[in-house]
Amino acid sequence: MKIARCTDGGAPFWAVVDTSRSEVTPISGAFSEWAPALTRGAGAAALKLAGAPRPLDGVRLLPPIEKTNRVVVAGANYAKHLQSDFGLKSHSQPVAFLKAYGALIGAGDPIRYPPLTAELDHEVELVAVIGAERVDRDDPLSSVLGYTVGNDVSARDLQRSGPPGVGMDLFGAKSQDRTTGLGPWIVTRDEFPAGSPSLRLTLKVNGETRQDASSGEMTWNVAELVRFVDERSSFDCGDVLYTGSPEGTGQGTGRFLRPGDVVEASVEGIGTLRNVVTTEQPA
Amino acid sequence: MKIARCTDGGAPFWAVVDTSRSEVTPISGAFSEWAPALTRGAGAAALKLAGAPRPLDGVRLLPPIEKTNRVVVAGANYAKHLQSDFGLKSHSQPVAFLKAYGALIGAGDPIRYPPLTAELDHEVELVAVIGAERVDRDDPLSSVLGYTVGNDVSARDLQRSGPPGVGMDLFGAKSQDRTTGLGPWIVTRDEFPAGSPSLRLTLKVNGETRQDASSGEMTWNVAELVRFVDERSSFDCGDVLYTGSPEGTGQGTGRFLRPGDVVEASVEGIGTLRNVVTTEQPA
Repeated sequence: MKIARCTDGGAPFWAVVDTSRSEVTPISGAFSEWAPALTRGAGAAALKLAGAPRPLDGVRLLPPIEKTNRVVVAGANYAKHLQSDFGLKSHSQPVAFLKAYGALIGAGDPIRYPPLTAELDHEVELVAVIGAERVDRDDPLSSVLGYTVGNDVSARDLQRSGPPGVGMDLFGAKSQDRTTGLGPWIVTRDEFPAGSPSLRLTLKVNGETRQDASSGEMTWNVAELVRFVDERSSFDCGDVLYTGSPEGTGQGTGRFLRPGDVVEASVEGIGTLRNVVTTEQPA
Repeated sequence: MKIARCTDGGAPFWAVVDTSRSEVTPISGAFSEWAPALTRGAGAAALKLAGAPRPLDGVRLLPPIEKTNRVVVAGANYAKHLQSDFGLKSHSQPVAFLKAYGALIGAGDPIRYPPLTAELDHEVELVAVIGAERVDRDDPLSSVLGYTVGNDVSARDLQRSGPPGVGMDLFGAKSQDRTTGLGPWIVTRDEFPAGSPSLRLTLKVNGETRQDASSGEMTWNVAELVRFVDERSSFDCGDVLYTGSPEGTGQGTGRFLRPGDVVEASVEGIGTLRNVVTTEQPA
């Protein structure tokens, strides 16, 4: 099942997406009311629909996360990205950090080009959505409602600007307003084989493939990352976890994003974020 | 004026605090409805009170921030702390990062001792509360509603556990559930002299002074920090900014917090956070 957070100009609402009919049907009640049952595997019985289907192309797809929830990113999770893009070796554990909610954009929104950077970069990522009220650390995947696509757009020059001995400035690099793609929707866990998903991730800039790898290459799989984060700072129902990006970023190639670029981040079995880089401020 | 966020067992509410009478009077409407006018200097005229005063000792003081808001921390902001506690030199800019909302506790709540650490440390800080809908970067202090006290409790062994080349694990160190003090209330900006406040900060453990410094020793003052953060990721009305801690932490002295310790973090003209370290889980 595909679950999206949408707006038709009014208040955001959650909806079931039927891509074969290009329709969305609103879901009744708050995410926290129905997500735990859906996460436990109750299927469509967990949802009370609210009204008739409406055309998918009549709604704007928002990042599938409420403002009360957290955006957690687990980085340093693909050895080749760490080695070839940053010249760093793998470590005994990943690194987790928080991203500002205001950094998020939906599947069709523009990527704002932040004025402080000259090195804006892309990072396609598999994103896990927590749907349980509390993570079961003995079986972390049972707490995952499903997966979506992320593009953890990063300002690399700002990333290097942190104080020596403290480290990378991940806030300046990765929390810039309206830069980080999330969406287009959540595909529930039951649509993938059991275990941590092994899915192809690709990222294209103006049609040219820049990143092409599998989430099966992660150093720490989704279950390990969910447990790692939750042991440090508990997940709430509705929080999302970016799981790191594979090699092929501008950090390694020197080819950064420019205004006007069309960026397409895709994960197999989920969908595509298509965002255009712009220096314009949205209305 | 002192503004607190309280509960008497039911839903949280904002209130004006009269410490001379030991009373709180609830404020009508959401923080975002009245805080901008109060921040612009409208004084009591900005507030519509909702009901009769009630005894201060009949309410629990919550962290004065809504769950939809961000907790931003600007670190590396006291040269002596950086030098004597971490052996690091000052840099050309501070470092900012986000803290999980779930890390926060109010003025009288227990500090949870996180099971992953053996080096739990204290950091008294001046905290600025943003009250404007949008920060005026030409006059950042005009966007500050007021100030409160923070204790940025940190797990130092986890802080050192981040990947080499990436840097300190500030998430594992500083976003542990129910560890970070915030409160007891916000004192509005009009109660302090104009400019970035120069206030005495102290922290005591079991009555013994461990930190004693002035916020006037900051490398970057409040106005510079607000602008620095806002340029990277815009503040919303109600976001809070921890402004760094002076020297005297356990990181420098080797004297870390233990279960049972009584920790008192105070800022001159604002108040005291008194929190007891516990391994117990609150009900």
